[in-house]
Amino acid sequence: MLLLGQLAGVAHGGGRQRNPPCKEMTVYYHNILYDGTNTANATAAFATQPTLLSRSASINDTYFGEIVVFDDPVTAGPALASEPVARAQGFFFYDKKESPNAWFAFSLVFNSTAHRGTLNLMGADLMAEKTRDISVVGGTGDFFMARGVATLRTDSYEGLYYFRLQMDIKLYDCYDV
Amino acid sequence: MLLLGQLAGVAHGGGRQRNPPCKEMTVYYHNILYDGTNTANATAAFATQPTLLSRSASINDTYFGEIVVFDDPVTAGPALASEPVARAQGFFFYDKKESPNAWFAFSLVFNSTAHRGTLNLMGADLMAEKTRDISVVGGTGDFFMARGVATLRTDSYEGLYYFRLQMDIKLYDCYDV
Amino acid sequence: MLLLGQLAGVAHGGGRQRNPPCKEMTVYYHNILYDGTNTANATAAFATQPTLLSRSASINDTYFGEIVVFDDPVTAGPALASEPVARAQGFFFYDKKESPNAWFAFSLVFNSTAHRGTLNLMGADLMAEKTRDISVVGGTGDFFMARGVATLRTDSYEGLYYFRLQMDIKLYDCYDV
Repeated sequence: MLLLGQLAGVAHGGGRQRNPPCKEMTVYYHNILYDGTNTANATAAFATQPTLLSRSASINDTYFGEIVVFDDPVTAGPALASEPVARAQGFFFYDKKESPNAWFAFSLVFNSTAHRGTLNLMGADLMAEKTRDISVVGGTGDFFMARGVATLRTDSYEGLYYFRLQMDIKLYDCYDV
Repeated sequence: MLLLGQLAGVAHGGGRQRNPPCKEMTVYYHNILYDGTNTANATAAFATQPTLLSRSASINDTYFGEIVVFDDPVTAGPALASEPVARAQGFFFYDKKESPNAWFAFSLVFNSTAHRGTLNLMGADLMAEKTRDISVVGGTGDFFMARGVATLRTDSYEGLYYFRLQMDIKLYDCYDV
Repeated sequence: MLLLGQLAGVAHGGGRQRNPPCKEMTVYYHNILYDGTNTANATAAFATQPTLLSRSASINDTYFGEIVVFDDPVTAGPALASEPVARAQGFFFYDKKESPNAWFAFSLVFNSTAHRGTLNLMGADLMAEKTRDISVVGGTGDFFMARGVATLRTDSYEGLYYFRLQMDIKLYDCYDV
């Protein structure tokens, strides 16, 4: 085992060539959080109470540690009423003390004539960045064994209870179905 | 960046050929939830209270947002008393308002003469489907760098506090150990 | 579908050759949990209350089911004051009734001149083992599409509210940036 004092680590070379994506799509994720009154419309809910840390008087409320579970609509266009293309099922939580920041893990569940199957994603949603990348770590059905990167961009934000993310998904591992 | 109005996206071809699995196994996962009295037997517990949304009077109780943490037995045959082959350590949560549906992330921890190492899985457990696929996103030890698909089937269901899933695991990326 | 009574499963051969890592690094992860008084220093917090099972009189308190969310510092050397190299953003939970044991999913967020990008990891932290492996399931930026294994070793432990893990990260899938 090498102990490396430098982050740079040891690169042994042999990196693979980076080919263009074998599949790409842009979709829109709508998080519609339960606010106590919108039972019919809500597709997400806080699963936990605020942490003691997030309620500490000496920090602003950045929801540190609060977990949201969702079964959110994913559409082809930005409008919530545009063509539904998938459900996003999973969770995120706020994870930074000083400012809002989140971490996501979820499945995109496709069930239409165009696509049937799932993509599984996880990664850091660095909300202070204009765009941020998370990983597509697996897939099933039409997306058998897929891998890639999804770029998130906050497209709309209406307080705590609604936000929309544009997701540009690029797959670099594709298999014949 | 291409903006695609259609879900179909852009397929650039180049999909890899899909080979047969390099390894497959069928195992049985037993979720034994703490019910307030079964301390000795329970291997799983609700980590959270019901969400406000799940308690809303206008929906049936589908446990929306409730998180279960588990260290569950995994056996070679359907019977709980059959040969233990792994522990499943991880969590799931219920994530649908209208009907029971879940999302899983966990490790299968193997520690026997047959196998030593872990498989890491995540994905949507679409409970309304007879079978549903989740992703094997990584592995360690004997399962170094494994990837694949696990097909889940609800094999037995006894109310909220016990269910059994048949897991057909097929690995498509295997490495010599 | 093959039903296999034996865990050994069916190996179809065709395992790939295991090459040396294309990149490796050793870093130190510091979990600094909120204890009610350390608001300024804490970078992690319990997101949930103890489960009913963990409070059951007939088991020792192993924190079964308790979830911790973190935005923890990651450094080049063991000392917390050594060079910062990343933030670890994610969560873990304790998941064993009989003894402390955990499950992790998180992103290493690099943002320096040396590296910019993220690594996404998940797996079982088998605390009873001297070292244990989790999976690197994806990466972004400088770590585009990375995969590999991270070996964890508990390097320091000061009760519930501080521990340090040495993480030896070896990537076996690397791409040219």
